Amino acid sequence: MSNTLRPKSEYRCFDGTVAYYSHYSASCDCEMSFAVYLPPQAQLKSVPILYYLSGLTCTEENFMTKAGAQQYAAELGIMLVAPDTSPRNTGIPGEDESWDLGSGAGFYVDATVKPWQKHYQMYTYITKELPALIIQNFPVQADKQSIFGHSMGGHGALICALKNPEQYLSVSAFAPIAAPINCPWGDKLFTAYLGEDKSKWAEYDATKLIEQTQLKSTIMIDQGTEDTFYQQKQLLPENFATASKKANQKLNLRWQTGYDHSYFMISSFIKDHMEHHSIYLNN
Amino acid sequence: MSNTLRPKSEYRCFDGTVAYYSHYSASCDCEMSFAVYLPPQAQLKSVPILYYLSGLTCTEENFMTKAGAQQYAAELGIMLVAPDTSPRNTGIPGEDESWDLGSGAGFYVDATVKPWQKHYQMYTYITKELPALIIQNFPVQADKQSIFGHSMGGHGALICALKNPEQYLSVSAFAPIAAPINCPWGDKLFTAYLGEDKSKWAEYDATKLIEQTQLKSTIMIDQGTEDTFYQQKQLLPENFATASKKANQKLNLRWQTGYDHSYFMISSFIKDHMEHHSIYLNN
Repeated sequence: MSNTLRPKSEYRCFDGTVAYYSHYSASCDCEMSFAVYLPPQAQLKSVPILYYLSGLTCTEENFMTKAGAQQYAAELGIMLVAPDTSPRNTGIPGEDESWDLGSGAGFYVDATVKPWQKHYQMYTYITKELPALIIQNFPVQADKQSIFGHSMGGHGALICALKNPEQYLSVSAFAPIAAPINCPWGDKLFTAYLGEDKSKWAEYDATKLIEQTQLKSTIMIDQGTEDTFYQQKQLLPENFATASKKANQKLNLRWQTGYDHSYFMISSFIKDHMEHHSIYLNN
Repeated sequence: MSNTLRPKSEYRCFDGTVAYYSHYSASCDCEMSFAVYLPPQAQLKSVPILYYLSGLTCTEENFMTKAGAQQYAAELGIMLVAPDTSPRNTGIPGEDESWDLGSGAGFYVDATVKPWQKHYQMYTYITKELPALIIQNFPVQADKQSIFGHSMGGHGALICALKNPEQYLSVSAFAPIAAPINCPWGDKLFTAYLGEDKSKWAEYDATKLIEQTQLKSTIMIDQGTEDTFYQQKQLLPENFATASKKANQKLNLRWQTGYDHSYFMISSFIKDHMEHHSIYLNN
C-alpha cells in the first residue's frame, strides 16, 4: 500500500531519459504503470510537466515509442508523463473481453457502478494520485502542469482541464472523442461505468462541461479529415466547437487534410502541440 | 510470378505518405513485404531513395513507427524504403523457432545451404530485386540511392554498400554487427545460411570487405556505450574501425554516451543520419 515507484526500464533519449514505472495505486486499488520522459534540463533544475493520455487499446508505451515528442520536450525542457489507459488484471469479469471496454479503455472517469467501481477510478488517479506521485518523485514545478491526449485520451485531457481549470495551465487534443454522450463509444462506456441514468454522464462530457467552465488558455485540437472514427461520428469535434463558440471559449480547431486517426497523424503535428503547451508552461 | 505490388495500407505523414506493400519476390520465392515513405516533393518530381535495413526480430513496420525519420525525409525530399528482415511462412522446418535465426533474421545474405537456400536470398532481394521494383513503381532518381540500418541491418547496409560501391552513394549504421565472423550471432547465422566452411563467410563480413573495397563517401556509425549487445561483444565496432583505418576508409564512428541498442537511440540521432545521406543524395 506504499507509494513506492517500481522502476521497470530506462532508456537514454535526446540526452534525457525515458523511464517506465509501476506502483500500487490507492485510487484504483491495483498496480498501475506509467512512462515518463525527463528532459536533460531536469538534471539541473525543476521542470514543468505535460501529461499525455492515450487512446483505446493503448498502454503507457505507445506515446513514448511512436509520437516523437521527446525531441521537443528536450528542446523546451518539459517533462512528459504518459500513464496506462486503465487498471489491468483486476479480476473483474469480462475486463479483457472487449477492446473498447475494461482493460485499455478506462475513459478517464471514476466508475460508480458494479463491477467497475472498485478499480476503475481513472479520473481520480489521473488528476490527483498521479500528479502527487510525480511531484513527490521527480524534479518538477508543481504549479506548471498541462495535459493533452489522443482520441479517448484527447477527451480525457479536455475533461481533466475543464474540471480543474486551476490545475492545468493548458490543454490540447488529437482527434478527441469530443462529445461522448452523443456517440456509440460514449454510450457503451458511460453505461458500463456510470450506469443507465444519462443525467450522470454530463459531468464527464467535454461538450457539456464547456458550457459551464471556460479556460483562460486557447484549447488546441487537431482533427484529420480521413479519420474513419470521425467519419463514423465517434468524435464529433463540431459539437465541441459549437459549444465553445457559444461559451466564448478560445478554440483552435485545425482540420488536417488527408490525415487519419493513427500515430502518423500525431507525430506530424506533435511539434505544434509541444510548442502550444510551452507557451503556458515556460512563461 | 508477376512484379505486382499489393498495397496493404497507407497513412498521411508530414504531408507525404507512409505506405505498406507486399509482392511476390522471385529471388526469395515467396511473398515479401516492405514499407515506404514518399515525401511531399514526390508529388512534383522524382526523389532520391534511402533504404533502411532493420535488426533482428523486426518487420517492415518498426522503423516507420519508431524512428521518427519521416519529418527529415519530408524536409530533405528523400524517399525511405524499409523492407522486412526475412522471408516468412516459407514452410522451412524451424523457421519460427529461434528469434535470431530464420524469420526476422535473414541477415541480408544469400543462403547457400539447405534448408535455407531456397528462400533466404536476402542479399539479392535487397540489392537487385527491391531496387528494380522501387524504380519501376515510384517517382525516384534511380542513380541516387543510399542505405542505412540498425544492428543486423546496420551490418546489412555496410555489406550492401561495400559490395556495390557504384550503386549506393552513402552508407551509415546504428550499432551495426560490424564483424559477424567474430561474434556469436554471426557464427550461428553464417553456419546456418552459408555452411561450416568459414572461408565462405568473409564475403559477407563488413570488416573483411573494407580491406578490399573503400568507399568515396564517409561511413557514419553511431554506437551507444550502454548497449548490452556491444558489451556482450556481438557488435565489435572497434574491429571495423581498425580495418577502416588500415584501409584509409573515412569513418565517422561516434560513441554515444549512455545510449543503448533501442529505437530511443535511433530516434535521438536519426536527424544526423538523414542529413549525412542528404549530402550525397541531394548534391
